[in-house]
Amino acid sequence: MPMKSRKALTADRPRRQSGAADSDLTAVRRYQRAVNYLAAAQVYLKSNPLLEEPLRPEHVKDRLLGHWGTCPGINLLYLHSNRLILRTEASLLLVTGPGHGAAANLANMYLDGTLGEFYPELTRDRAGLQRFIQRFSWPDGFPSHLNPALPGVIHEGGELGYALATAFGAVLDNPDLVAVCLVGDGEAETGPTATAWHSIKFLHPVTDGAVLPVLHLNGFKISSPTIFATMTDEELASLFRGHGYAVRIVGHLDRIHGEMDEAMAWAHGEIRRIQEAARAGRIPERPAWPMLILRTPKGWSGPREIDGRAIEGSFRAHQVPGKELRTHPAHLQAVEAWLRSYRPQELFDAEGRPAEDVLALCPRGDRRMAMNPHTFGGRMRRPLDLPPLGECQVPVSGRGQTRASSMKAMGRYLREVICRNDQARNFRIFCPDELESNQLGEVLEVTARQYDWPLPPHAEHLRPEGRVLEVLSEHNCQGWLQGYLLTGRHGLFPCYEAFIPIVDGMMNQYAKFLKSSLEIPWREPVSSLNYLLTSESWRQDHNGYSHQGPGFINNLLTKKGHTYRIYLPPDANSLLSTIDHCLRARNTINLIIASKLPMPQWLTMDEAIEHCRTGASVWRWASTNGGEAPRVVLAGCGDNLTLEVMAGVQILREEAPEWRVRVVNVTDLQILGIPQKYPHGLDEERFQRIFPLDAPVIFNFHGYTAAIKQLVWERPVNERFDVNGYREEGTTTTPFDMQVRNRTSRYHLVIQAAQKVAAADPGCSAHAEDLIRKYESRLREHRDFIRREGMDPPEISGWEWKSVTWRAR
Amino acid sequence: MPMKSRKALTADRPRRQSGAADSDLTAVRRYQRAVNYLAAAQVYLKSNPLLEEPLRPEHVKDRLLGHWGTCPGINLLYLHSNRLILRTEASLLLVTGPGHGAAANLANMYLDGTLGEFYPELTRDRAGLQRFIQRFSWPDGFPSHLNPALPGVIHEGGELGYALATAFGAVLDNPDLVAVCLVGDGEAETGPTATAWHSIKFLHPVTDGAVLPVLHLNGFKISSPTIFATMTDEELASLFRGHGYAVRIVGHLDRIHGEMDEAMAWAHGEIRRIQEAARAGRIPERPAWPMLILRTPKGWSGPREIDGRAIEGSFRAHQVPGKELRTHPAHLQAVEAWLRSYRPQELFDAEGRPAEDVLALCPRGDRRMAMNPHTFGGRMRRPLDLPPLGECQVPVSGRGQTRASSMKAMGRYLREVICRNDQARNFRIFCPDELESNQLGEVLEVTARQYDWPLPPHAEHLRPEGRVLEVLSEHNCQGWLQGYLLTGRHGLFPCYEAFIPIVDGMMNQYAKFLKSSLEIPWREPVSSLNYLLTSESWRQDHNGYSHQGPGFINNLLTKKGHTYRIYLPPDANSLLSTIDHCLRARNTINLIIASKLPMPQWLTMDEAIEHCRTGASVWRWASTNGGEAPRVVLAGCGDNLTLEVMAGVQILREEAPEWRVRVVNVTDLQILGIPQKYPHGLDEERFQRIFPLDAPVIFNFHGYTAAIKQLVWERPVNERFDVNGYREEGTTTTPFDMQVRNRTSRYHLVIQAAQKVAAADPGCSAHAEDLIRKYESRLREHRDFIRREGMDPPEISGWEWKSVTWRAR
Repeated sequence: MPMKSRKALTADRPRRQSGAADSDLTAVRRYQRAVNYLAAAQVYLKSNPLLEEPLRPEHVKDRLLGHWGTCPGINLLYLHSNRLILRTEASLLLVTGPGHGAAANLANMYLDGTLGEFYPELTRDRAGLQRFIQRFSWPDGFPSHLNPALPGVIHEGGELGYALATAFGAVLDNPDLVAVCLVGDGEAETGPTATAWHSIKFLHPVTDGAVLPVLHLNGFKISSPTIFATMTDEELASLFRGHGYAVRIVGHLDRIHGEMDEAMAWAHGEIRRIQEAARAGRIPERPAWPMLILRTPKGWSGPREIDGRAIEGSFRAHQVPGKELRTHPAHLQAVEAWLRSYRPQELFDAEGRPAEDVLALCPRGDRRMAMNPHTFGGRMRRPLDLPPLGECQVPVSGRGQTRASSMKAMGRYLREVICRNDQARNFRIFCPDELESNQLGEVLEVTARQYDWPLPPHAEHLRPEGRVLEVLSEHNCQGWLQGYLLTGRHGLFPCYEAFIPIVDGMMNQYAKFLKSSLEIPWREPVSSLNYLLTSESWRQDHNGYSHQGPGFINNLLTKKGHTYRIYLPPDANSLLSTIDHCLRARNTINLIIASKLPMPQWLTMDEAIEHCRTGASVWRWASTNGGEAPRVVLAGCGDNLTLEVMAGVQILREEAPEWRVRVVNVTDLQILGIPQKYPHGLDEERFQRIFPLDAPVIFNFHGYTAAIKQLVWERPVNERFDVNGYREEGTTTTPFDMQVRNRTSRYHLVIQAAQKVAAADPGCSAHAEDLIRKYESRLREHRDFIRREGMDPPEISGWEWKSVTWRAR
Repeated sequence: MPMKSRKALTADRPRRQSGAADSDLTAVRRYQRAVNYLAAAQVYLKSNPLLEEPLRPEHVKDRLLGHWGTCPGINLLYLHSNRLILRTEASLLLVTGPGHGAAANLANMYLDGTLGEFYPELTRDRAGLQRFIQRFSWPDGFPSHLNPALPGVIHEGGELGYALATAFGAVLDNPDLVAVCLVGDGEAETGPTATAWHSIKFLHPVTDGAVLPVLHLNGFKISSPTIFATMTDEELASLFRGHGYAVRIVGHLDRIHGEMDEAMAWAHGEIRRIQEAARAGRIPERPAWPMLILRTPKGWSGPREIDGRAIEGSFRAHQVPGKELRTHPAHLQAVEAWLRSYRPQELFDAEGRPAEDVLALCPRGDRRMAMNPHTFGGRMRRPLDLPPLGECQVPVSGRGQTRASSMKAMGRYLREVICRNDQARNFRIFCPDELESNQLGEVLEVTARQYDWPLPPHAEHLRPEGRVLEVLSEHNCQGWLQGYLLTGRHGLFPCYEAFIPIVDGMMNQYAKFLKSSLEIPWREPVSSLNYLLTSESWRQDHNGYSHQGPGFINNLLTKKGHTYRIYLPPDANSLLSTIDHCLRARNTINLIIASKLPMPQWLTMDEAIEHCRTGASVWRWASTNGGEAPRVVLAGCGDNLTLEVMAGVQILREEAPEWRVRVVNVTDLQILGIPQKYPHGLDEERFQRIFPLDAPVIFNFHGYTAAIKQLVWERPVNERFDVNGYREEGTTTTPFDMQVRNRTSRYHLVIQAAQKVAAADPGCSAHAEDLIRKYESRLREHRDFIRREGMDPPEISGWEWKSVTWRAR
């Protein structure tokens, strides 16, 4: 269908269409006129909502905001999705990629009454209409982009690229749900969208629902043509057939409604055909799920041109055409003529009530897309059945005597979670092919990686059904998980620590979505989004510098304190207690960071639970003098950093038992901040019970030091905190050399402690200087050994905590 | 070619191949054996490099690191790229997507002598070979991933996904260069790679070079099959033809060398055919650039199985097969048999010198891929011809009296840069379709957006040739720019501030690449990577909350202080001085943040240059008492925040002229940090000249407050800094309401100043309390006005700096 052969169909020039009866089509065109009118009216008008008076500048908003260009396409798809629902009673929801076209979604939600259910003053009469059009893009009103204040929204669409993955996440384990997903052709250029097309290869037609992607080619982005709009129909069809889709291209404007009716019926039929066959046991190989490509002009039905320059079908339709209408009479005239071309007086009665035939095209009740129950995730959510922690604990018979991998313990725990919730089908793990690498492989003993396409030889642990989705795309993992959570389910995203910043942008947007949701009374809490970061920087000695980066913490710390938590459990039992908490938690982003390699275990399960409850504790058993009246505090946060603290304090216990060193462990990072900003922040009295004002603190931290500095900033005498952390000093090396290079090693801690003690008490300075010399020399010896032998000295790799007199209760 | 019909060809079972003479093929197979042997030997051996003795545990490294699985594929492509070079003398470089297979690249670079040019001790004899194999994955040796320590490397490959865009960036404006780009099938699942395939639609066959992508299907990621390996040949061909490529699939193992010879010759021929036609004036429409899809088993030629489990062709070949060989005799035996299957004694002579026929397959001089001059970007780099700042300045005839858009001034400046460097063709702008939206459209008067595919009607400012590339993919912009810079050119990446975190991960990796490069003596400095962020958070009142996010600053602040700079110029002339500096700068990441909307101008060009040189100044003309002996310091950083400071101080000048308020402006964020960590950090004496120890500082900052807190952390008496910033309090609202919501407005500053003054001097408290009450009430009135009228009060939107007595020199 070459572009030149298509013609614009304006609202006042109806044409005969195929595929639908004339009377039917009249109402369809009237509905289309109504929603296009309402979308445009929201952008421009603050009064005179039905144009009963000639349009004058004082009817027009002072600030004209919104994006007209994408609205007619959203309206067209909304209308034909509604028609499909009316014909089939199918359960549809809509994920709108171009979320900046909120005016269109709002128009449809206003007409079908959804909006009035949440905002009762938005009645479908003149007074309600007046309020409705004014509220758009108005301070404290409706934003110009979709956001959680609008029902039906599980995707914001401000930062483009994530609609498609979100839609797939929503239909997982919802076998009767169809997510219609409008993908803008601008959005389609993004990487995250480009790879989300693969999602069909994961979808199981028996147990999952379906996504109907509609790639909307309206030709232009803000000012350039879109790549997809420059592709031929042959290229487009070839591309998406290659992805595995059955493709239908729609866009003959002179018979668009008939085409759309047919295309939607075909797509829905294909979906049902695949699902019914599969559910009857005839599972198709490489099912060709349908998708539509819809070509309509940008700003279709808007002004053809203004000031002699093309608007409709050009990039100039992107935002607000004729924007100068308060000062340029020609603009005012053009906009008025355009708005009147929809003939609102034919669509609304004298009381401002929408015409019956228009309303008759709206589905009812929870068949309205914005009322689809799945979009109210908080209402759909059922708590997980979680195993008692006692069942999964790592037995600890003496401090530091057991060695265990935190991630292996986590794997056993998650296996249990999967078993217990197998019937409910409401828990999934999304991972960039790192489950086994991250030592979580035990879950694959009771479930599989879900994948639907045929597999090559030697593939293991993959089946069309499974609770795990693995794909080498953090973007897909995040998008799928968001869709899954916002439709009321639970999930976990394990990832290499260094590569989770790939989804920084997505996480930023999700944090905004969460924060806004919390301000909407009818948004009930959804499950928290849980990141489990491992293969962490300190043990990426082998993969090297590119695999070392704890910066996700810093990104999360920029968010509102009540929207996130950051946990760095020091051992396996603490990790289990943490995940138990996180899988119950709601409405937060939880970041958990722990190691996958075997490490000494410090706490029994009961102790771990208590440690996690308080978020930080004095480890009296590790301290000298029982941790009382400390001269210096050694604090660890992060399991590898805690190990160095323990090894450091052991040296100090032997070399300077009189130095009263207190050992503190922090597992919940937020406790460091003040409670006014951080819900988990310790009140100042409790904070000082752990970190006395008069004792210097050597804080050995897993991440960049900036995180600690900003958290303790508001604390009195914050300069007592001397923070060690990751200093971007890495390469392919050994585990201990990573600590040495970043100056977080046990020897550095001993040297730092000696410096602090000497500074406070000159009487100790001779002893301190001896220790400093001794351990600086030890550092040099170890560096030499490592360079020579390519491995850590045995006294490091074989190090054990010596204080074994203590026994578990 | 269904998978089952292919057979593994092991090193000791040569077969007759088509397309090459027998004698030729013998050497080809011997070269292949040599590089596969060297790759495997590097992973396992620390001595006995030619297996002259039976393999014993003490010959084996204690820590076995590296990724064998991808090495045979890299070796195959390296070999056949070399053969193409030998046949055609073409200028090729190699971008290796699976950078974790560095052992393969190293093997080829060792053989062709490249490595010896930079590491003379790595001679091609027994002693050199011994050093070579030991150095791999050894502390302070060669990392297991490609990194800047290796010649020819312009892409690290640790975080997967960016090879393809980098390769396209490298060939822009290098018409005779061909970048062979190996894309792993794991990497191909990433979003950034998925959209980078579109890059051919931008490439101009007359003035740019070509990329030859080779999608390597080795079937598995870490533990799952790759998506692409589960696709049929028909699906693969359809997908990439849809993208616009001419596709050839290679992978008959029994005649692989003949196939590869033919395929490489075909691809090179197609490239030349397209280029020659275009350069003769017959520019092809939608040129079908060639690409190869290469199917070989993962870990091909490695052990078939170990412990009864398949290795070759399975995910178990990913890293180090038979890893337990120091403790498991069966592993030792399997690895020894495997290594001996390459028959190293036939490939190296008694002195450890590689055989002549093997060496004869290596190109010479700078035709070796790792010696391609374009990969030595620092050597290729020529400084830009930059316009004198005086020519581009914004005339400032009175403080705050001129209103100008910083970005419009920048647009004029960049237009000039493009004109002056038009012949050199070494400056480009990469942007996610936001050039015009960001008010930089003036550059399009002298150049165009480069795009090669045919355009739809109404497209403007696009041509096959142009200095600007716009695509709605921040990933592509970043990848192209990295490739362009690392091959010695210059560039700029303008972006909406809120969406630049999309490339957080890429920036992290680039910062690591830069830091490592600085440690390599033969890496000469490349141009800095310049981000120009605008449409910044404070003026995204209209697009709303999703478009507000200054967090990229915080991410950059996690890097080493010498690898980045962050600039927030307060007005247009300061911005011009900043960009002039940044376009001359080398080896850093520069972040520039400025507004696009008209704002009051404060500094003449001479003043701006001086202000930028020092990074921060006392604005005596704005302060009371000439800024002397301040009772309180009001500091602004960021143009919108500076505006509020100016409006706040104007109120204070009128209401409390006796309060000695000093106005400070910070344009270079690093000056706040200590010079030991930040090269631009002010020494403490100069710092205190601006921020006296005894005066509280109200710091009105553009970004999140954490940035300032971490920078001033080490400064004495840091608690005198009271930091305002973006608090994640946004929505669709008005510009001033953004300031009010985030408590950075002029009224908040007045209230804060009054509180500080009252706290320090009880004599002032009555006056201070009056002011606090007055401006709290003003705040409430303004909020009410904004909600009622949907716009800012005229006294805000029409605010002007009143002190007009001052005149420019």
